[in-house]
Amino acid sequence: MNAEIIAVGSELLLGQIVNTNARFLSQQLADLGINVFFHTVVGDNPDRLESAIEIAEKRADLIIFTGGLGPTKDDLTKETIARHLRKELVIDEDALTSIELYFKRTNRVMTENNRKQALVLSGAHILPNDHGMAPGMVVEAKDHTYMLLPGPPKELEPMFSQYGYQALSKANLVKELIVSRVLRFFGIGEAALETEIMDLIDAQSNPTIAPLAGDGEVTLRLTAKHVDGKIAQSLLDNLENTINQRLGSFFYGYDQTSLLEEVMKTLQTRKLTITAAESLTGGLFQQGLTAISGASSVFTGGVVCYSNQVKQEILKVRKETLETHGAVSEQCARELAENANQLFKTDIGISFTGVAGPEELEGKPVGTVFIGIAIKGKPTIVEKLILGGTREANRGRAVKYGCYFLLQLLKESQNTK
Amino acid sequence: MNAEIIAVGSELLLGQIVNTNARFLSQQLADLGINVFFHTVVGDNPDRLESAIEIAEKRADLIIFTGGLGPTKDDLTKETIARHLRKELVIDEDALTSIELYFKRTNRVMTENNRKQALVLSGAHILPNDHGMAPGMVVEAKDHTYMLLPGPPKELEPMFSQYGYQALSKANLVKELIVSRVLRFFGIGEAALETEIMDLIDAQSNPTIAPLAGDGEVTLRLTAKHVDGKIAQSLLDNLENTINQRLGSFFYGYDQTSLLEEVMKTLQTRKLTITAAESLTGGLFQQGLTAISGASSVFTGGVVCYSNQVKQEILKVRKETLETHGAVSEQCARELAENANQLFKTDIGISFTGVAGPEELEGKPVGTVFIGIAIKGKPTIVEKLILGGTREANRGRAVKYGCYFLLQLLKESQNTK
Repeated sequence: MNAEIIAVGSELLLGQIVNTNARFLSQQLADLGINVFFHTVVGDNPDRLESAIEIAEKRADLIIFTGGLGPTKDDLTKETIARHLRKELVIDEDALTSIELYFKRTNRVMTENNRKQALVLSGAHILPNDHGMAPGMVVEAKDHTYMLLPGPPKELEPMFSQYGYQALSKANLVKELIVSRVLRFFGIGEAALETEIMDLIDAQSNPTIAPLAGDGEVTLRLTAKHVDGKIAQSLLDNLENTINQRLGSFFYGYDQTSLLEEVMKTLQTRKLTITAAESLTGGLFQQGLTAISGASSVFTGGVVCYSNQVKQEILKVRKETLETHGAVSEQCARELAENANQLFKTDIGISFTGVAGPEELEGKPVGTVFIGIAIKGKPTIVEKLILGGTREANRGRAVKYGCYFLLQLLKESQNTK
Repeated sequence: MNAEIIAVGSELLLGQIVNTNARFLSQQLADLGINVFFHTVVGDNPDRLESAIEIAEKRADLIIFTGGLGPTKDDLTKETIARHLRKELVIDEDALTSIELYFKRTNRVMTENNRKQALVLSGAHILPNDHGMAPGMVVEAKDHTYMLLPGPPKELEPMFSQYGYQALSKANLVKELIVSRVLRFFGIGEAALETEIMDLIDAQSNPTIAPLAGDGEVTLRLTAKHVDGKIAQSLLDNLENTINQRLGSFFYGYDQTSLLEEVMKTLQTRKLTITAAESLTGGLFQQGLTAISGASSVFTGGVVCYSNQVKQEILKVRKETLETHGAVSEQCARELAENANQLFKTDIGISFTGVAGPEELEGKPVGTVFIGIAIKGKPTIVEKLILGGTREANRGRAVKYGCYFLLQLLKESQNTK
């Protein structure tokens, strides 16, 4: 079983957008055990599209089309496939009703060319579009399976995840249910993590284990197949347990979460508030936290203390601390975290001070970072890091480490209660 | 003249990376007036790669390959093309020297397979790699032009910009020098901007005008062609003048700059310092400013004042302001900007307060934003906006508007000096 993904759209050939749909679908098909041998991008031109279909039919069993299902003249994917397969286009009543409802709901007037979006290939299995108007479809013909998906990723991705998988299974392209789970780790490199579970990776078959590193984090995607979904889930549970017996101290969450989200969830559950004193990171921690809806339940505010004057005058870092140890020091990080916590009357104060780069500071090398964490009623912790990245990477990494250390501390204090 | 871009790499077919090279090259070729009709992605498999070459030869004059020039076994682009074109691979002495120097410089031991990277197609025109080891190349054969480029974007992009353009010109694919310039606008929508210059767009031939909207900004890419580079530049100058006679108040910079960078440059030139009081934006302005190296010359620090308590206690917003007008109000924005400016002893204080969403606040709808700008010795300005985006978009847009208003104010005060 192998597949080809054909993206239709002149905007791709003009370089106006990147073909992220091909990446998304390739990942999904890899999970399903379907090989992808080619991606093709073709413009809004019926003859060139038909030639691409003819080529794909020679080298793939499953052909997935993305884009060209919209209401305008240059949207011609289904028209071209209909002509090529000698199938008619017919109105799908469910799709039409859903398009009419969409216009009613948004108080807009529906035009005749919007009806065109409800046209589907006769005999097609319809994939509902919960995030837009054009329905997707799956057709079996000429010993091939043709799947048509809309171009906008925010329509395509949920459509494929919710209905595309099942449709491939109905089309007997996938015999088993596929369940996958992403485990997220921080504080350990990819090589070190792989070494810890090399025996499991070597022995993998079902579930499979796929490590991926990026942005200072490592994830493991576990994928199990079974005709019974419950059994597939329990296969994942067992493997996850084995992995986390070895790596649990680096594990922080599942799937699409982030360290900042985990911090926020933990603070909400524990009913704790936090403030920050950011020198190195210049507000990156606070803006990340407040980017999450609901941040006001745990965060009241904080200070960006970029200059030494602000550290002294607003956050009351002692003059002698700055003179003796400098701003990039354990002592300064400690005072910043403790004094911010007092000033903002919060339960936790976190501070970031260091040398982002490109130049060194106070004779300390680029990448030197001190993170202070003051939790009310507990001794303040200061962690030192030496990071090796660019200015941008060092700042981002520092925020992640801050979250990671904080989560560890909160876990420990939970356990000792 | 038309082109096809063939990306070689199984990591693309597994969905591990996105094909951003195709986007970059498509933009470049569009600028050069070369049509791109197809993109193809194929894995590290010599037979499938050769079949892709055969298909491309039937439908394109110029075939650009990306990836597969590395030292390992699965890098087989040039080997496959050599076999296909019946050309030999020969060591390029310049490339070999440059690879040897690279290893000396980084104190690493060069292995035999690194020599493989210096192999080039016999008779090829070499494109030097200033950011990596594998050289690019251009070959003429069988009435086609074949260009081979390395896969990593940080090697491919500068190689194409510095040497690829010229090589296409040498290969007589491009007769003229192409010069392009991006003008960046803020505070005007794409449709309104297009309307203002519709006559220029309709009449365009050389230079061409390509508008692009994204992230609340609009850019115009002006591209001129001429055998004489100086004349091409003066064509751009003339068109830019005509455009900015109409749109100058929305113009803020060229090419890769950003509103934050322009703010920083202006403050540095004028020797002014700035602080911020951020409620709505939670530190986004400050982290953006400090992300730019050298920020400490204009920025000493600021406050994230998320809760009303912090606005009152740290930034001394009057209790009656919050009670009478609320935190999302002109009055609050004014006090935040002025009081932050006093507290941090800076020349300029900027404040952001508003409703990011998803829920409304104080009975004010999502997207309501007040931006205060207090410049020492001048009356404080407060601007109100109603934005219509998501939480993330509203926060980002507010920061951009803040920069835009500030740049306008500084321009005015410059002019009235």
